[in-house]
Amino acid sequence: MECEQLFSRALGRSSYNSITSASSDEELLDGAGVIMDFHSTEDDNLLDGDASPGSNYTMSNGGGGGGACSSTHLLDLLEEPIPGVGTYDDFHTIDWVREKCKDRERHRKINSKKKESAWEFTKSLYDAWSGWLVVTLTGLASGALAGGIDIAADWMTDLKEGICLSALWFNHEQCCWGSNETTFAQRDDCPQWKSWAELILGQAEGPGSYIMNYFMFTFWALSFAFLAVALVKVFAPYACGSGIPETITLVLAVSSGLSLGKEGPLVHVACCCGNIFSYLFPKYSKNEAKKREVLSAASAAGVSVAFGAPIGGVLFSLEEVSYYFPLKTLWRSFFAALVAAFVLRSINPFGNSRLVLFYVEYHTPWYLFELFPFILLGVFGGLWGAFFIRTNIAWCRRRKSTRFGKYPVLEVMAVAGITALVAFPNPYTRQNTSELIKELFTDCGPLATSQLCQYRSLMNGTGTTATSATPGVYSAMWQLSLALVFKIIMTIFTFGLKVPSGLFIPSMAIGAIAGRIVGIAVEQLAYFHRDWFVFREWCEVGADCITPGLYAMVGAAACLGGVTRMTVSLVVIVFELTGGLEYIVPLMAAVMTSKWVGDAFGREGIYEAHIRLNGYPFLDAKEEFTHTTLAREVMRPRRSDAPLAVLTQDDMTLAEVQALIAQTSFNGFPVIVSKESQRLVGFALRRDITIAIENARRKQEGILLNSRVYFTQHAPVLPADSPRPLKLRSILDMSPFTVTDHTPMEIVVDIFRKLGLRQCLVTHNGIVLGIITKKNILEHLEKLKQHAEPLTPPWHYHKKRYPPSYGPDGKPRPRVHNVQLESSSSSNQNEAESEEEVRLLDPSSH
Amino acid sequence: MECEQLFSRALGRSSYNSITSASSDEELLDGAGVIMDFHSTEDDNLLDGDASPGSNYTMSNGGGGGGACSSTHLLDLLEEPIPGVGTYDDFHTIDWVREKCKDRERHRKINSKKKESAWEFTKSLYDAWSGWLVVTLTGLASGALAGGIDIAADWMTDLKEGICLSALWFNHEQCCWGSNETTFAQRDDCPQWKSWAELILGQAEGPGSYIMNYFMFTFWALSFAFLAVALVKVFAPYACGSGIPETITLVLAVSSGLSLGKEGPLVHVACCCGNIFSYLFPKYSKNEAKKREVLSAASAAGVSVAFGAPIGGVLFSLEEVSYYFPLKTLWRSFFAALVAAFVLRSINPFGNSRLVLFYVEYHTPWYLFELFPFILLGVFGGLWGAFFIRTNIAWCRRRKSTRFGKYPVLEVMAVAGITALVAFPNPYTRQNTSELIKELFTDCGPLATSQLCQYRSLMNGTGTTATSATPGVYSAMWQLSLALVFKIIMTIFTFGLKVPSGLFIPSMAIGAIAGRIVGIAVEQLAYFHRDWFVFREWCEVGADCITPGLYAMVGAAACLGGVTRMTVSLVVIVFELTGGLEYIVPLMAAVMTSKWVGDAFGREGIYEAHIRLNGYPFLDAKEEFTHTTLAREVMRPRRSDAPLAVLTQDDMTLAEVQALIAQTSFNGFPVIVSKESQRLVGFALRRDITIAIENARRKQEGILLNSRVYFTQHAPVLPADSPRPLKLRSILDMSPFTVTDHTPMEIVVDIFRKLGLRQCLVTHNGIVLGIITKKNILEHLEKLKQHAEPLTPPWHYHKKRYPPSYGPDGKPRPRVHNVQLESSSSSNQNEAESEEEVRLLDPSSH
Repeated sequence: MECEQLFSRALGRSSYNSITSASSDEELLDGAGVIMDFHSTEDDNLLDGDASPGSNYTMSNGGGGGGACSSTHLLDLLEEPIPGVGTYDDFHTIDWVREKCKDRERHRKINSKKKESAWEFTKSLYDAWSGWLVVTLTGLASGALAGGIDIAADWMTDLKEGICLSALWFNHEQCCWGSNETTFAQRDDCPQWKSWAELILGQAEGPGSYIMNYFMFTFWALSFAFLAVALVKVFAPYACGSGIPETITLVLAVSSGLSLGKEGPLVHVACCCGNIFSYLFPKYSKNEAKKREVLSAASAAGVSVAFGAPIGGVLFSLEEVSYYFPLKTLWRSFFAALVAAFVLRSINPFGNSRLVLFYVEYHTPWYLFELFPFILLGVFGGLWGAFFIRTNIAWCRRRKSTRFGKYPVLEVMAVAGITALVAFPNPYTRQNTSELIKELFTDCGPLATSQLCQYRSLMNGTGTTATSATPGVYSAMWQLSLALVFKIIMTIFTFGLKVPSGLFIPSMAIGAIAGRIVGIAVEQLAYFHRDWFVFREWCEVGADCITPGLYAMVGAAACLGGVTRMTVSLVVIVFELTGGLEYIVPLMAAVMTSKWVGDAFGREGIYEAHIRLNGYPFLDAKEEFTHTTLAREVMRPRRSDAPLAVLTQDDMTLAEVQALIAQTSFNGFPVIVSKESQRLVGFALRRDITIAIENARRKQEGILLNSRVYFTQHAPVLPADSPRPLKLRSILDMSPFTVTDHTPMEIVVDIFRKLGLRQCLVTHNGIVLGIITKKNILEHLEKLKQHAEPLTPPWHYHKKRYPPSYGPDGKPRPRVHNVQLESSSSSNQNEAESEEEVRLLDPSSH
Repeated sequence: MECEQLFSRALGRSSYNSITSASSDEELLDGAGVIMDFHSTEDDNLLDGDASPGSNYTMSNGGGGGGACSSTHLLDLLEEPIPGVGTYDDFHTIDWVREKCKDRERHRKINSKKKESAWEFTKSLYDAWSGWLVVTLTGLASGALAGGIDIAADWMTDLKEGICLSALWFNHEQCCWGSNETTFAQRDDCPQWKSWAELILGQAEGPGSYIMNYFMFTFWALSFAFLAVALVKVFAPYACGSGIPETITLVLAVSSGLSLGKEGPLVHVACCCGNIFSYLFPKYSKNEAKKREVLSAASAAGVSVAFGAPIGGVLFSLEEVSYYFPLKTLWRSFFAALVAAFVLRSINPFGNSRLVLFYVEYHTPWYLFELFPFILLGVFGGLWGAFFIRTNIAWCRRRKSTRFGKYPVLEVMAVAGITALVAFPNPYTRQNTSELIKELFTDCGPLATSQLCQYRSLMNGTGTTATSATPGVYSAMWQLSLALVFKIIMTIFTFGLKVPSGLFIPSMAIGAIAGRIVGIAVEQLAYFHRDWFVFREWCEVGADCITPGLYAMVGAAACLGGVTRMTVSLVVIVFELTGGLEYIVPLMAAVMTSKWVGDAFGREGIYEAHIRLNGYPFLDAKEEFTHTTLAREVMRPRRSDAPLAVLTQDDMTLAEVQALIAQTSFNGFPVIVSKESQRLVGFALRRDITIAIENARRKQEGILLNSRVYFTQHAPVLPADSPRPLKLRSILDMSPFTVTDHTPMEIVVDIFRKLGLRQCLVTHNGIVLGIITKKNILEHLEKLKQHAEPLTPPWHYHKKRYPPSYGPDGKPRPRVHNVQLESSSSSNQNEAESEEEVRLLDPSSH
C-alpha cells in the first residue's frame, strides 16, 4: 500500500478524494498511479484528464434523465435510467453541483410521496432522520474504537518492557494499582510487574538484565512492526473500508515504538466508520456529496477523540478537511464529535476521566516578557515544519523513484529496529511518546517524581519555593536534547512508511522537548538574574514565576503548526487540552509566528505537499490566486491543438458521432447549434452517449449508421428516404456552466472551488471556444507556482525522473496520462486582445 | 430611527447590508423605505430593483478600467478612472465578485511596486499588516467599550434604588465593599448606601418610604428611557457610525429597566468600531467586500465580550452573520474575539475576573432521566420562540402601519413606565436582569442567601444534606411565575422600540425562570418520591441529586434557541459560560428540541423575520431551495413585458444609446453582437455609460449625436462623412455571469449565494434572453414560500396594507419600487419546453 495514500486517507483533506475509494476495494491503489507529471510531453487527454480513456467513469444520470437535475423530464421513454450510472471511479473528482441536484430531486420525490401512505410517511421520516442516525453511529463507533486503541496500545507498549504476572491483561500502571506494596513515590514499582530480565534471567539489576531487557524491547518492537506492515500488506488494500485492520495495525504500529502517533490515523478510522454507516442509508450511499457530509462529521469525531477536543474537531473539519461545509454539516459534526467524546470518556482509557493522556491545568499566570521566548519557540516550530516538509517529501520521492520503495516490509523493519536500538538507552525516548508529552507538559508540583523536577528547594518565609536546578535536571536536559535530535531524524524517515503513521504526536513531542528546554533555561535565568529589569517586576524572590510546562505546550503547538499550517483549529485543540483562556495569547503568538516562518519557506503544509506529491486533483481553498490570466489562456484546446471536438444539435449521423467518440478520449462533448453557427446548446457526456446509442440500437427498430442524431426537441426535417433519426435530448445537459474567454482566471478558480465544478465551457460572444477542467486549473496553478517561487525546492529539479509508481504487486503501472504545459502563454496576451485572433472551432465558418 | 433598523444593525446578519451604511450618515434611513411589497402591481424596475432609478449607484471602476477586474487595460486614454466610482449606496447589494477582483488588482499593484523602493516596500508591509491591525484595534475598542457599558449600566441601575453617599461613583456592591460594617450574610446592607427614601424622607422602613422608593424607581426609569430615546432621535441617525451615541443610549436603555439586553447592541457597537477603524486603511475603506471581513471579525468580538465566549463569538459570526467567510477571516475573527475578551477581563467590570456576570461552575453530574425535563424545557423554548416571533412581528408591523409608529418617544416612555410600575413590587423583576439570571443559574451552596435557597436542611450521617423546600421557596416560586408572565409580555412590546434593544438577555431570563421552576419541581419530586424507580438508582437518601441551576441554564439556552434558531454557536456560548463539557448533552438536547419545535411553526428566526419585515435584499444561506423551477421562469423580462433593453456592439448611434438610457431605469444593459445575431458580448452599467459619454463629449472633439458608439476593439467601417465614433470598450464588462434558460433555479440560487452576485444573464444557445437579479430571486423565493407554507402567518394577509415607512422627520417617504409577481408561472412549464416558444429579443430576427 502506498505510504502517502495511507497517509492521505489517514488525515487531512485528501480524505475527500480518497476515503470514498474504500468503497470499491479492488481499485484502491489505482489513484496512486495517476501522477500528474507536468513535465512530460504528451498532451493526449485534455478534457478532464483525471480519467483514463475508456475508463468506466460515469456521471449522475439517476434523477430526471441524462441532463441530470435539469427538470426536463424523460419524454423519450426509450431512455430508462441506466444501472450503474451516477457513481464515480475512485480518486475521481466529483461534480458537486450535480450530486446536490440529485439529492434535491430525491428529497422532492420523497416529500411528494409523503402523504400517500403511512409507509411512505415513515420512509420520509426515516430519510429525514438518517443524517442524525448516521452521525450518531459514527460518533459511537469512533469513540469506542478510540478507547479500544488506547487501551490496547498502552498494554502492548508496556509489553515491550515486561508483563503483569498477576493478570496478564493489565498494563504496568494497572498492575501496580492492585498491589498493596506500592507507595506513592514508587508507584511504578511493584512485585506483580516483572520486567523480561526478571522473568527470564531472574534478576532485575546488572548488565545482563539490562542487555536482556534491551534485547526483548527490540524484539517486541520488531515483532509489532512486522505484524503491522504485514497486516497492511495482506489486508489493508482490500479490507480497509471496514476500519478494523486499520485499527489493529494502528495499535501495532504505535506499540512498536516507531516515531508516529495514533491521532491522524484515528481520523481515518472515524472516516472509515462514517463510510460504512453511510452504506446503511440510501440517502448517503448513493450520493457522493452527501457522503462527504458524513465524512466531514466523521473527521470531526476523529479529532475529538484523538485530542479530546470536540470543538477543535469541528473547526479542524472546517479548516482543514472539508471542501464544502454547509451549516447543517457544522451542526452534525458537532454532534458526532460530542458523541464520540462521551463514549471515549465513559471507556476512560487513561483512568483520569479525561479524553487524552496529556490534559493539563496550569495555575500561574504568564507575563508579557515571556512572549519573547514563546515567539522564539514559534520560530523554531516554523523552521522545523519547513525542514520536515522538505526532507520528508524528498525522502518519500526517493522512495517512490528508486528500487528502495519495493521493499516496504524491510524498510519498516529497519526503521523500527534502529528506533528501538537507539531509543532504549534514553528514558525519554524509551517511554511512550504520549507519556513523554504528558511529563513535559506537567509542571513540577510538590509530589512530582520526574527527574525534570529535581530542584533544590529553598523554603523561605512566604512558604513559596525558589528553585535552582540540581545535577539531575541538567542530566535530564542532556537526555532531552539527545531525544530531540533522535525524534527529529526518526520522524522524517518514519512518516510515509507503509504503516498508519500520524504526525501529530511526534511533532508535538519535538515541540514539547524544545519548549521544556527553553522553559527550564528561562526559569534558571530568572532564578540567577532576579535583578534583571525584565524579571524584577514580577519575579519576586521565592516565587514560582516561570512555568516550564507551559513552554512545552507552546512549543508543541508551534511545531504542530509549522508542520500542518493549521491555525484556528490547532489553537482551539490546545485550548481544550488546557481548559484555560489564560494561555491562548501565548499559543496564538507561537502558532502565528510558526505559520509565518514556515510560509516563508513554502506555503504548503505537509498534507498539501503529500497531496501534490501524489498528484491528487485537489483545488486548495486556502491558496490565493494572484495572477492575471484570462480563461482563454488556460482553456483547451490550445492554439497548437486540434480544434475542440463538438457535436452539432441536429445534423450529424450516428456514424459521425461514433467516429468522434472513437477518435477522441474526452469525457464529454459540447453540443453546438451547427457547424455554421457555433452557439453553445449543451454538454453531453461520452459515457451517456455510448450507453444511449447502445440502448437505442437494442430497443429501437430502424436505427442505422446513417441515422440522424439530434438533440433538439423536435426531429429535423429529413429527406423521405432517410432512416429513423435518434433522439438524444434526454442525455443532454442543457445547463452547462460557461464563462467568457475574457473572464479572469481568479474568478474561474473561485467558481470551481465554491461550486465544486468538474468542467466549465468557455465561450466568446455566445460561441463555444473551449473547455476548462479542474485538471487544467491545477496544471495552470502548478505552472504559476513554479514561475513565481524564488526558492525552488530541490525536488522540482528531479521531477522529470519520476518513474511510474508501483502497484501492490510491485510491478510498474502504466502512466495514465501525461499533460504538456506550454512554456509560456503570456506572450499571446496582447495579440489575443484583438478579436480577429479569437480562434473559432472551424476556420471556414464566419 | 426605525426600530428594526436599529435592531438589524444591532445584531444578526443584516448588519452586512446596513452597518456599512453608517458611512454616509445622511442616507442612513433610506433603506428602510425600500419595502419589498410583492403585492403591488407596478413592475417598473426589473433590473436590479434595489436601486432607485437614477440613483447614484456606482460600480467598481477603479482598477483596470470599466470592465472592472478584467485585465483589458485602458487602451483608450480618454477613459480615466472616474472619481466617486466604486462605492455603493446604503442598503445596496454589493457585488462580491467585483469587489474581490478589485482587491486582487490592488494587491497585485502593491506587490509589483514592492521592490521599487524602501518606501513602497514599507507600504506593502503596511498593507499586509493592516488586516491584523484593524482587527486588533476593533478588538481593543470593543473590549473597552463593553467594559465601560457594563460599569456604567451597573451604576445607573443601582441609582434607581439609591446612592452611595461616601462615593457617588460607586454602585451598591462597591459601596458596601469598602464598608467595615458589612457582614457576609448582609453584604448588601451598609450605612454608606442610602436608598432614596432614607435620603429624602430619612426613614428606611414603612409604607411611606416604600412609596418614595417606588416613585424614585419609576422616575429614574422614565428619565433614563426618555434620555435614551431622545438621544436616538437626535443623534443616532447622524452619528451612529461612531458608536458613541449608541453606547450611551445602550447604557441608558439597559438602566431604565426595560426588558432588553445589551448583548445584541454590543455586537453592533463592535461593528461600528470595525467600521470606523477600517477607514484608517485604504485596503478596507475602499473595498466593500474587505470591509465586510472586518465586520465579521467585529461581530465575533462583540459576542465575545457580550457573553465572554470568544470561540462562541467566532462560530456566531460564521453561523449567523457572515455571508462570505474565508478562512483568513476565521483566523482574524478569532484574534479580534480574544483581544476583546482580554481587554474586558482586564477592566474586570464584575469584579469576579470573569467576562460575564453569570459565569457558573457546576459540580454534580446529571442523569439520563433528567433528559426528559430538559427536552420539556426545549419544547417550552421552541413554543416561546414561535410565539414571540409571531406576536413581536405582528406588533412591529402594526407600529409601522398605524399612526402609533409616529410617536416613538411616547411609546418608549409608556413601555418604560409600565415596566417600572409593574416591576418594582416583585424582587425578581426589580433587579437587573443579568443579576436575576446569575441568581437563577447559581446553585444553592451552604452560603447562599437567596430566597430560592431557603431549604430545610436535614443533616444526616454522610454529611450531605437532603433538602425540602420551605415556605420561602414556595413564595419565591410564585414570584418567579409572575415574573415569567411579566417578562414574556414586556419583551414582546419592548423589542422593536426605538432604543437599542437586545433580545438575548430577556430570552435567557425567561428560559432561566422556567428552567428554575422546573428544576425545583423535579428536585422536590425526587425528595418526596425517592422510591420511584426513576430516582431510586441515583438519588440516594440525603444526596443532592438535582441541580436546579442547571435546569435554569438549559431553559435559558432553549429559549434563546427558540427565538434566534442558533444552534452550534449557542451551545458553544453556553458551554463557554459553564466551562464544562459535562453539560453539553443536556444543552444540545434542549436546543435541538427547541429548534425543531420552533421550526414546526415557521422556519424563520427573529432576525430573518425582521429582515423580511424590512425588506432587505438578503439571500439566506440557510434556507434550502427545494422547488423545481428553471431560470427562464424567474428571469426578466417576463412574457408580458417589453423586450429586454440591450445595446449592440457596434451599430448604435449616440442618440440611440441616450434614448435607451432615458427611456429605461435599468442599472445595466447587456451588449449583443447585433440585432440580427443576438449573441451576448458583455454587460455595461448605466452609470458607466452615462459618465463615459459625458467624459467623451467634454474631452473628445467631434462627438455628435449621430456618432457611432462601439464596444469592439476596432472601430466599425463607417461611411466617409460620418462623425467620429465613440469607443466604449473600456466600460464593457466582458465576463458577465451567464446561465442557460434551462438551468434549475436551485443552481442559480447557489451561484448567487456562493459567489455573491448581483445579477446574472440568461442565455439560450448563446443568445441573451433575459436577466436575473438578486431581487428577482428573493421575490421568487417569497412567492414559493407563500405557496408552500400551510400555516400562513397572520401578517401575510395584512401585507397589502403597508403604508410607506416614515423618515426621521415623521413624514412618509415615497415608495421606491414596487414589483409585481405573476400569480403563477408553473402553467407555462410544459409549453416552454418546446424551443419555438423561446422568446427572443426581437421577433423579427431569426
